[in-house]
Amino acid sequence: MSVKVTREEALDYHRSPNPGKVAIATTTKLETQRDLSLAYSPGVAHPCEEIKKEPELAYEYTAKRNLVAVISNGTAVLGLGDIGALASKPVMEGKAVLFKKFAAVDSFDIEIDETDIDKFCQVVKAIAPTFGGINLEDIKAPECFEIEKRLIEELNIPVMHDDQHGTAIITTAALMNATEMMGKKVEELKVVVVGAGASAIACSTMYKELGVKNLIMCDSKGVIHKGRTDLNKYKKDFMIDEALSMEEAFTNADMVLGLSRPGTFTKEHIALMSEEPIVFTLANPTPELFPEDVKAVKPKAIVGTGRSDFPNQVNNVLGFPFIFRGALDVQTRKINMTMKMAAAKAIANLAKEPLTDELKKEFGDLSFGREYIIPIPFDKRLMVEVSSAVANAAVETKVARVKEFDLQAYREKLALMV
Amino acid sequence: MSVKVTREEALDYHRSPNPGKVAIATTTKLETQRDLSLAYSPGVAHPCEEIKKEPELAYEYTAKRNLVAVISNGTAVLGLGDIGALASKPVMEGKAVLFKKFAAVDSFDIEIDETDIDKFCQVVKAIAPTFGGINLEDIKAPECFEIEKRLIEELNIPVMHDDQHGTAIITTAALMNATEMMGKKVEELKVVVVGAGASAIACSTMYKELGVKNLIMCDSKGVIHKGRTDLNKYKKDFMIDEALSMEEAFTNADMVLGLSRPGTFTKEHIALMSEEPIVFTLANPTPELFPEDVKAVKPKAIVGTGRSDFPNQVNNVLGFPFIFRGALDVQTRKINMTMKMAAAKAIANLAKEPLTDELKKEFGDLSFGREYIIPIPFDKRLMVEVSSAVANAAVETKVARVKEFDLQAYREKLALMV
Repeated sequence: MSVKVTREEALDYHRSPNPGKVAIATTTKLETQRDLSLAYSPGVAHPCEEIKKEPELAYEYTAKRNLVAVISNGTAVLGLGDIGALASKPVMEGKAVLFKKFAAVDSFDIEIDETDIDKFCQVVKAIAPTFGGINLEDIKAPECFEIEKRLIEELNIPVMHDDQHGTAIITTAALMNATEMMGKKVEELKVVVVGAGASAIACSTMYKELGVKNLIMCDSKGVIHKGRTDLNKYKKDFMIDEALSMEEAFTNADMVLGLSRPGTFTKEHIALMSEEPIVFTLANPTPELFPEDVKAVKPKAIVGTGRSDFPNQVNNVLGFPFIFRGALDVQTRKINMTMKMAAAKAIANLAKEPLTDELKKEFGDLSFGREYIIPIPFDKRLMVEVSSAVANAAVETKVARVKEFDLQAYREKLALMV
Repeated sequence: MSVKVTREEALDYHRSPNPGKVAIATTTKLETQRDLSLAYSPGVAHPCEEIKKEPELAYEYTAKRNLVAVISNGTAVLGLGDIGALASKPVMEGKAVLFKKFAAVDSFDIEIDETDIDKFCQVVKAIAPTFGGINLEDIKAPECFEIEKRLIEELNIPVMHDDQHGTAIITTAALMNATEMMGKKVEELKVVVVGAGASAIACSTMYKELGVKNLIMCDSKGVIHKGRTDLNKYKKDFMIDEALSMEEAFTNADMVLGLSRPGTFTKEHIALMSEEPIVFTLANPTPELFPEDVKAVKPKAIVGTGRSDFPNQVNNVLGFPFIFRGALDVQTRKINMTMKMAAAKAIANLAKEPLTDELKKEFGDLSFGREYIIPIPFDKRLMVEVSSAVANAAVETKVARVKEFDLQAYREKLALMV
């Protein structure tokens, strides 16, 4: 999403009509003394007693049922870096707003002034009863890995660090479609990942899960290989045996995923790739390489960026609102790899469907192909497709709390929510 | 608020239309790609950078400006006792709803699964950047004293434990008016407090601050005096020298405040009091003694309860929404005693004004006197009177962040919000 806006326009938007972007709404009738007696003392004692007896009834009597926390400590915010908890609040409110807007998920931002892993986890665990799910956001690597891992293990509500898994899911969808388009098998692909931060690690993990065997990760020092002595344990998982050069890495590669900075790879690198490569240059707002430069050397390349002004925008909003929508609706304990893979598959499949008339009006008559390998973020069918796929995968992998689940009925319900 | 409601009605109310009572609303326009570019990346970077440079700008660009957390660990919920964090959620959502309904304060509930004082404070401090104020709720004594004290000292946003100060402020208002009605001075009064929990301690502290010299506190073992060896440090502050009996304590007392259980004092105790005593029997839902029993022995008594079906309902909703409204509007660092006293005085004064036509329709033509010593919770004038008094006191005691404050303009603004 990179429509140009000025500083003053952005500040005005955040100032008015009231400071910030979120407010609290009451959902029940509250006009009479009787309403108050139901909403508060003495009536409220009844749901409290029910939940005390049977904790899962919190999903029946409280907002927990539809409530996701957007939690950050502000250590890795957008392109701004470590700006701290308070200064990250506009981003977290923004994320909450996207949850509501795209998937009717009630989402509240919590900024946590704590960078220590233990203490941060302690805080999140302590406040977890409030929520039905936790979206971790803009927490720096490598701390984010340990934080997410621990919270997933120790909490019984779904926890997902979107910076890691959002991009992973959406680029996996693209990878699925591109492989099919190339007539290749995932197992045969050579994939280069440029960048070794939270998102790059999560993408690479998911590609391997999908079946990719030949994956080469590069950080600012070059290819990650066994000869290097400067690697953290997360990078070590992706070491290759040989000390390849970047040029060797790119040679005959079928895909490059850029999650780095402008200029970390060039036209010359792209020229070394296969004839019909998939090239995702996701540095934002300026990509590693612009689409026209990629196309200049590989006319048949499938190119994606993080921007809305080029084809194939990799935008996390294709994923997280609907992933949590599905997770909340079947009351999952986890968001596991099967669910993430199901989300990717649903996103991939949607790109093969003809555009709706509504989308055609705004975006022209796109159809499945190099310029349209992943859906447009505004495609309202994402809600039904992605949420139902995630919910269904949760039920099948037995991490859902709901005892009865009718996929078709759920899809119909979702369609009504769009 | 004690309109009778059945268990099933209360559960239904919490189930529908959706589970719970609160939701998140978006306050800005969010229709186009451009809106999203303002609300999220890239536009959102601008307010982040501004806040990073100047933290107080969070009040200008985020929801913090109007946002109060209702925070509990569920250790002393209503009459239910220690039901834990999760089971307390319906009450905390209810409190949030009252904030919104009565004073347009956005309020979000946070249930913290932590009973250790240090760890609880650590959690609240960590999440504090999110909020403009913190309403502590239903935390058991004596931990609540230490928790509130520490958070007030260590945070730069207003923190108030409403169970303590809400009742204190409202009964102080009643005490101010009753003293005037009796033609006495506060310094001459003999006050008995039955109950020695969080609220009783806070009420007693505030009465002493108001000028009461002769105050006798009683717990379940009787009068709190120097001879006792079973007292915590909070009760010790109210020890009297002599080991009086309850009967001696009540003899010629001008006021009794009951914050205990039905039956802790009786008609016989009331009979020992002065001719025109103030008798607050606030045990809920069944008072220590019913108003008719008090009147049977002291026809001129001024009687108040916690219930809406008797005159003089001591309901915290007379205070907390407007106290935080005022505190937020001048961006206070604290809610100090001067502000609490100003709230009590504003509440007391409002009872001397004639009822509005709207109130007369519902409650009859009440006028200042024994049956109407404190306002009715639904009196819409509370917003202007209490909030402006609190805000003004904050400015005068220099705990407000706002640099310019025009009392009259603020009152006019409040009047428009009602």
